[in-house]
Amino acid sequence: MTADDLVTLRRDLHRRPEPAWREFYTTARIVDELESRLGDDLAELHVGPEAIAGDHRLAVPDDAELTRWYEQAREAGVDDDVLERLEGGYTGAVAVIERGEGPTVGLRVDIDGLPQTESGDPTHRPAAEGFRSDHEGAMHACGHDAHATIGIGVLERIAESGEGLDESRSSSEQRSDVGFEGTFKLFFQPAEEVVGGGKSMAESDHIRDVDYLLAVHIGLDHPTGEIVAGIDGFLAVSHLEAEFTGASAHAGGHPEQGRNAVQAMATAVQNLYGIPRHSEGKTRVNAGVVEGGSAANVIPAEARIVAEVRGETTELMEYMKGRTRQVLRSAAAMHDCEVEIGIGAEAPSATSDQELVSIVADVAGETAGVERVLERDELGGSEDATYLMRAVQENGGSACYVGVGTDHPGGHHTATFDVDEDSIQHGIETLAGAIERLGDDQ
Amino acid sequence: MTADDLVTLRRDLHRRPEPAWREFYTTARIVDELESRLGDDLAELHVGPEAIAGDHRLAVPDDAELTRWYEQAREAGVDDDVLERLEGGYTGAVAVIERGEGPTVGLRVDIDGLPQTESGDPTHRPAAEGFRSDHEGAMHACGHDAHATIGIGVLERIAESGEGLDESRSSSEQRSDVGFEGTFKLFFQPAEEVVGGGKSMAESDHIRDVDYLLAVHIGLDHPTGEIVAGIDGFLAVSHLEAEFTGASAHAGGHPEQGRNAVQAMATAVQNLYGIPRHSEGKTRVNAGVVEGGSAANVIPAEARIVAEVRGETTELMEYMKGRTRQVLRSAAAMHDCEVEIGIGAEAPSATSDQELVSIVADVAGETAGVERVLERDELGGSEDATYLMRAVQENGGSACYVGVGTDHPGGHHTATFDVDEDSIQHGIETLAGAIERLGDDQ
Amino acid sequence: MTADDLVTLRRDLHRRPEPAWREFYTTARIVDELESRLGDDLAELHVGPEAIAGDHRLAVPDDAELTRWYEQAREAGVDDDVLERLEGGYTGAVAVIERGEGPTVGLRVDIDGLPQTESGDPTHRPAAEGFRSDHEGAMHACGHDAHATIGIGVLERIAESGEGLDESRSSSEQRSDVGFEGTFKLFFQPAEEVVGGGKSMAESDHIRDVDYLLAVHIGLDHPTGEIVAGIDGFLAVSHLEAEFTGASAHAGGHPEQGRNAVQAMATAVQNLYGIPRHSEGKTRVNAGVVEGGSAANVIPAEARIVAEVRGETTELMEYMKGRTRQVLRSAAAMHDCEVEIGIGAEAPSATSDQELVSIVADVAGETAGVERVLERDELGGSEDATYLMRAVQENGGSACYVGVGTDHPGGHHTATFDVDEDSIQHGIETLAGAIERLGDDQ
Amino acid sequence: MTADDLVTLRRDLHRRPEPAWREFYTTARIVDELESRLGDDLAELHVGPEAIAGDHRLAVPDDAELTRWYEQAREAGVDDDVLERLEGGYTGAVAVIERGEGPTVGLRVDIDGLPQTESGDPTHRPAAEGFRSDHEGAMHACGHDAHATIGIGVLERIAESGEGLDESRSSSEQRSDVGFEGTFKLFFQPAEEVVGGGKSMAESDHIRDVDYLLAVHIGLDHPTGEIVAGIDGFLAVSHLEAEFTGASAHAGGHPEQGRNAVQAMATAVQNLYGIPRHSEGKTRVNAGVVEGGSAANVIPAEARIVAEVRGETTELMEYMKGRTRQVLRSAAAMHDCEVEIGIGAEAPSATSDQELVSIVADVAGETAGVERVLERDELGGSEDATYLMRAVQENGGSACYVGVGTDHPGGHHTATFDVDEDSIQHGIETLAGAIERLGDDQ
Repeated sequence: MTADDLVTLRRDLHRRPEPAWREFYTTARIVDELESRLGDDLAELHVGPEAIAGDHRLAVPDDAELTRWYEQAREAGVDDDVLERLEGGYTGAVAVIERGEGPTVGLRVDIDGLPQTESGDPTHRPAAEGFRSDHEGAMHACGHDAHATIGIGVLERIAESGEGLDESRSSSEQRSDVGFEGTFKLFFQPAEEVVGGGKSMAESDHIRDVDYLLAVHIGLDHPTGEIVAGIDGFLAVSHLEAEFTGASAHAGGHPEQGRNAVQAMATAVQNLYGIPRHSEGKTRVNAGVVEGGSAANVIPAEARIVAEVRGETTELMEYMKGRTRQVLRSAAAMHDCEVEIGIGAEAPSATSDQELVSIVADVAGETAGVERVLERDELGGSEDATYLMRAVQENGGSACYVGVGTDHPGGHHTATFDVDEDSIQHGIETLAGAIERLGDDQ
Repeated sequence: MTADDLVTLRRDLHRRPEPAWREFYTTARIVDELESRLGDDLAELHVGPEAIAGDHRLAVPDDAELTRWYEQAREAGVDDDVLERLEGGYTGAVAVIERGEGPTVGLRVDIDGLPQTESGDPTHRPAAEGFRSDHEGAMHACGHDAHATIGIGVLERIAESGEGLDESRSSSEQRSDVGFEGTFKLFFQPAEEVVGGGKSMAESDHIRDVDYLLAVHIGLDHPTGEIVAGIDGFLAVSHLEAEFTGASAHAGGHPEQGRNAVQAMATAVQNLYGIPRHSEGKTRVNAGVVEGGSAANVIPAEARIVAEVRGETTELMEYMKGRTRQVLRSAAAMHDCEVEIGIGAEAPSATSDQELVSIVADVAGETAGVERVLERDELGGSEDATYLMRAVQENGGSACYVGVGTDHPGGHHTATFDVDEDSIQHGIETLAGAIERLGDDQ
Repeated sequence: MTADDLVTLRRDLHRRPEPAWREFYTTARIVDELESRLGDDLAELHVGPEAIAGDHRLAVPDDAELTRWYEQAREAGVDDDVLERLEGGYTGAVAVIERGEGPTVGLRVDIDGLPQTESGDPTHRPAAEGFRSDHEGAMHACGHDAHATIGIGVLERIAESGEGLDESRSSSEQRSDVGFEGTFKLFFQPAEEVVGGGKSMAESDHIRDVDYLLAVHIGLDHPTGEIVAGIDGFLAVSHLEAEFTGASAHAGGHPEQGRNAVQAMATAVQNLYGIPRHSEGKTRVNAGVVEGGSAANVIPAEARIVAEVRGETTELMEYMKGRTRQVLRSAAAMHDCEVEIGIGAEAPSATSDQELVSIVADVAGETAGVERVLERDELGGSEDATYLMRAVQENGGSACYVGVGTDHPGGHHTATFDVDEDSIQHGIETLAGAIERLGDDQ
Repeated sequence: MTADDLVTLRRDLHRRPEPAWREFYTTARIVDELESRLGDDLAELHVGPEAIAGDHRLAVPDDAELTRWYEQAREAGVDDDVLERLEGGYTGAVAVIERGEGPTVGLRVDIDGLPQTESGDPTHRPAAEGFRSDHEGAMHACGHDAHATIGIGVLERIAESGEGLDESRSSSEQRSDVGFEGTFKLFFQPAEEVVGGGKSMAESDHIRDVDYLLAVHIGLDHPTGEIVAGIDGFLAVSHLEAEFTGASAHAGGHPEQGRNAVQAMATAVQNLYGIPRHSEGKTRVNAGVVEGGSAANVIPAEARIVAEVRGETTELMEYMKGRTRQVLRSAAAMHDCEVEIGIGAEAPSATSDQELVSIVADVAGETAGVERVLERDELGGSEDATYLMRAVQENGGSACYVGVGTDHPGGHHTATFDVDEDSIQHGIETLAGAIERLGDDQ
């Protein structure tokens, strides 16, 4: 792929962001790209329910929501055959290239967008250059459009790396001559933003034989030209959903007869953010979505909080979860409401293995455009790539999470997030180089 | 209309509750009923934009919402000609009967439903007998279905009362012989629940020549067989909408970069309910609808409160409004957010005139099925009938708000509200009797 | 007593305000005044434990506090013999005058101050004219100094009224000639402000034979020259004290090990003020005193709320009390604290009897300086005079609570409260006149 | 000093805990001990205003409080001459030993107690063995009694170390034979708990010529037998005091006329704990002391919060301080109150120098009873020893903060904190050994 191809692909994906389990257009577009670019080079291509363990999907939206996005993808003109295989929110894909004997190397990229409105400000490049989100209220505000693009770029590089390999292998010392031997699997993972897809991929058969797993994230406050060989510090995370139920009443006529679910919710929100900080490490809490009530003149009988808690370790996350439950229950009791607390998606912590970190750092140091290589850095956020990393590690393999710096004007998850498209190439080069190295003279 | 006709009509309306400014089916159904039952007896029939002063409508929903309900009414098969006249949320009707010289007497009934889910419990009669709301999330939880039915019943009674009048008027002393002379106007008012329709009817020409205005409400915690001749104690009311705007941030990665609109909202809710009670009379506050945030892992940048405040007098309502503004602004400032506060619908207070109260009490005392007549009672809620009452009183006329007792299993604005259909007849008899008396030997 | 005597006495009491059960100086000063002015005219004088049912005292402070005020009174130079009788917080007095056959008439005045700092502003007359409180942190901010003065003034008037009665009684028709016949009891009640003394006086023997009871309050937003013959609308009241106990921890080192009693307390305060208003009448709640914690760097293990709730009826007060308990318990549970809730002083509601209201209104209309007589008004506050009123009414007697208007620059319970001393005379004249009427030709 | 002497001294200090700037007994007792044990060995002894820069004292209590503790110390029978030098809250001492040419080495120990009630439970050794705090409401809950004891023990060791030095110095290679040459200064610092004394000692002349500074803390969750050679991770800290002023009103009669300072305070507390966590490091906030209001029936006009904020860096502490100010101001505005915010004591962060850490670790490894030596650990709390450490470091010297493990049943700042007295000897040995090393063959 030329640099222009990469930009074109990334911008097309950027214009059509699809939140978790709704990546109908995105998956179909990826499949289309793979088939047209790689064709027979692909040993296998698993799509939708074949790519993931469907029963392990977390945080799947309701049918109406799925249908709405499904129809929207259809209207965008994607291949109906592919689309039908995704029906019901079974998105994502796994592509496999086989190049003789050698280890099985995996690369995981995530592909979903966020339920967030993109900036329309003319200083925001996607708005200025016409590739701002077509889906009002949804946005690629975390760079997964670039991740998918990097994935396809790496696949193509690995596919090409095998070609003409026989002649060129005379000198394995020459880095530029290395060719990949073994099996390469690209995991296009859905639903990372809701921590909902990692588990379903980690529970699929595709991960079982992976010896080396790389995962990648762009940005993370590192500028273009910087590579972090091994990212750690993944916060363990858990999503909770609390439904408060009270009783409605006429707000003017009989306020005392209400059992006010919005008062309970507000009390809970106030106290959730007040859960004590912990001396043993980072903790986080967020009441990310709230809603309640039906009309101005009715004491609200229903309210809802979608929250998440995180911890530097699983224990710290559990501490936060325990306190959150206590706050939610007491807030309900205070206002004579019931509360039902559902635990949603969760992800563990994970660590990058030094073996892979060293290889990535080494390759990155030789990559054009990369000016600075950090061996390690902390994420400070969560990621369900940890499910895949842990699965590989538990099977005796190694895993590593790579950061690819990119100048991003707004922060991750904000309305003005964007990537420097030059960094897409840095990611492809570094990852493909490392994968070739793993599939070379191991 | 027979008792069966009344029940059939009321249940049909009950099954199709339409919230404020969305009374497309309801208005069309009323028009259909009037035309088929009264035909030439109707001197005038004003529908939609002709019935109200459209510019004075308050709290009109957005076009998408209006369109959704409009299409739903069309699908229910109402008369397209009528429906088209209502387009854009111009609902309601005014029907006029003329019976020679005499005063102009008005009756106002409201016709809208609530955005609330009706109980499906088998002990809830509408659920058991098959006339539970077809519109999930909407409900006639305040008896306006019965009000519309009473209105049509009274219209028919007055229309009939004039017939054969010439013979019967020999003895005006005989109560049972009175016939109505004058002009009678029935105001089918939309959008009472959002305090949004009263003003638009009070600003129309139709109210200007009204000498006597009656309004009616069923239930209000009075049992079947009880009539309250004159209701007072209307709380002045004002609706407010606050939009909090902060900044989103990744909740795990950079919580400190967020400006949390949901925290601002929760702080506001907690403190709104804590506005001090007032020694000079009743006050009310309700955060009836709240929402905020976009995803569990994003610090919420947006949140909204739809609130209402009330006061026993306009001054007390203004006190609540002032404190509410202060709370909203300070809560925003505390969390570094902006807040935009919109003032929505408002309604004043009003009093029932003794002249009319005495007549209604007198007639009610003679009405079959009425076992107890209370001369006066307090509403303790708000009503935008007060706009019409004040308009008539300011023109030198008299107004009176009549309560018709009905056994209601659940309270007003609750999921199990229902009326005792026997009371519909009590309302028709009492109101028609009082109107005849007013149009008799005044 | 001359007008100057009254002012001198009132100002002396004003300078030495003593909160509930600490009225050592005040009681001794009253006893001294009675003995020097009335001497043998007093049939009985009951002081301290003889005046009240000591076991029924509510809200008595601890010994250290009592001792502090006791010593302060001793240093002020009051009669040691009297003071010793008050030891342990048995304050108050009952003075009795007997004037032959006739009904037993009682007058109840309260004598305690408030734990509040008086204004030192030169526009505050007590500050300007040198009779501001000597007791920093205590203040006569509700006029009980004037009440005690009125009580002594009335006693003297009734004592004199009997003198020379034999000659003057020739014409009972002449109002100016009436003389009191019967028994007159003056109740100097302690500890009204904490609703703590009324019950102990109502449980004493002294109230049992009272046929007519008057009580009096100055001010209440009525100007000088206005008399309210019968005050109603006493709110039932209950005091609660909540002690939150958590666990301390180093706020920097181990914040998560604390169980934060101040967070629990703050959550409770926020939600106490948010207890829903009630459609059936007035309610009140106040977290009047709060405290918690020990040092800036220690997570607070202890916190306390002294609250009160009120209701227009006892039922409404109980509603508030129930919700208050629920809020306190849930707030404790939310922050893993325990809470102990003590119910303190309480007082019921009461009504003024029309028989007495008419007499007071009649007499007031003839009193010099009184320009306006209101037959009835609502208090909107609480009073433990209701215990005495109810006791008399339950024994078949009548009771009436009289308001004596006075221009007061600041509101009751504020730092700039003061009375217009002219109104003291209005109170004496009206009450003495009514008492004489009751003891005349009944 | 024998082990018994050390225990006796420590327990005597434990029984008489004195909070910040009130260490009258403690200082006098230390002076007495120094004079009786060291006598002529002391080159200098600076007491009270001579030991500190009085103008730089932070968080000094009011005169009444100082006087109360001063008198209590006098009654305990301490030397009046010493006591008089401390009047006005100038506490603390600096003792100097001179042993010829050599570096100036300092040791800083803190001596104040906490305003906290000590457990009376029989399982709490001070309660069981009769040395529980005599000062109700004050407690040595952080081990400063042991620190002062360690200080005196080290002084004695250094004083003895010089004696007989001439003979023993034949072999400087033998560790056990080393003797101290140079100047040794012991800083008995007052008011650490309020972060109030460190600055005044750092601004005194005594610190200027110090080449090596050691500071020591016992416990910190390390068990007996463990030594941490160099503690880092001091959180920068700032104390704030907010005074809310509203307006009082009668809570029953005119609640709306109040401007409720307790509501403002509670809103602030709720939101202070909710200040967002920061991605760049540890932050802390605590509303350690709150109080407000005057009586149950008065809307509170005054309320107060004593808070502290901390940050892993000064920038993070400033972030917390800024958000705290915003919360306090907005909470006041919300309830129509004023707020005055005073910034109290502050302390910066600091780091232990490796040079000293190595020496301490080395010596500790050879100390009897020490089973485990950690080179470095994080404090996670704050300390105003950082002022002295920074002062020395800025002058080109080195500083090191040493942790001495001790089994403590309750956590620091809790009612059951206690030390294992065996560890006192570990502290003396390790510190004296390190000091001798520094004053030996440098």
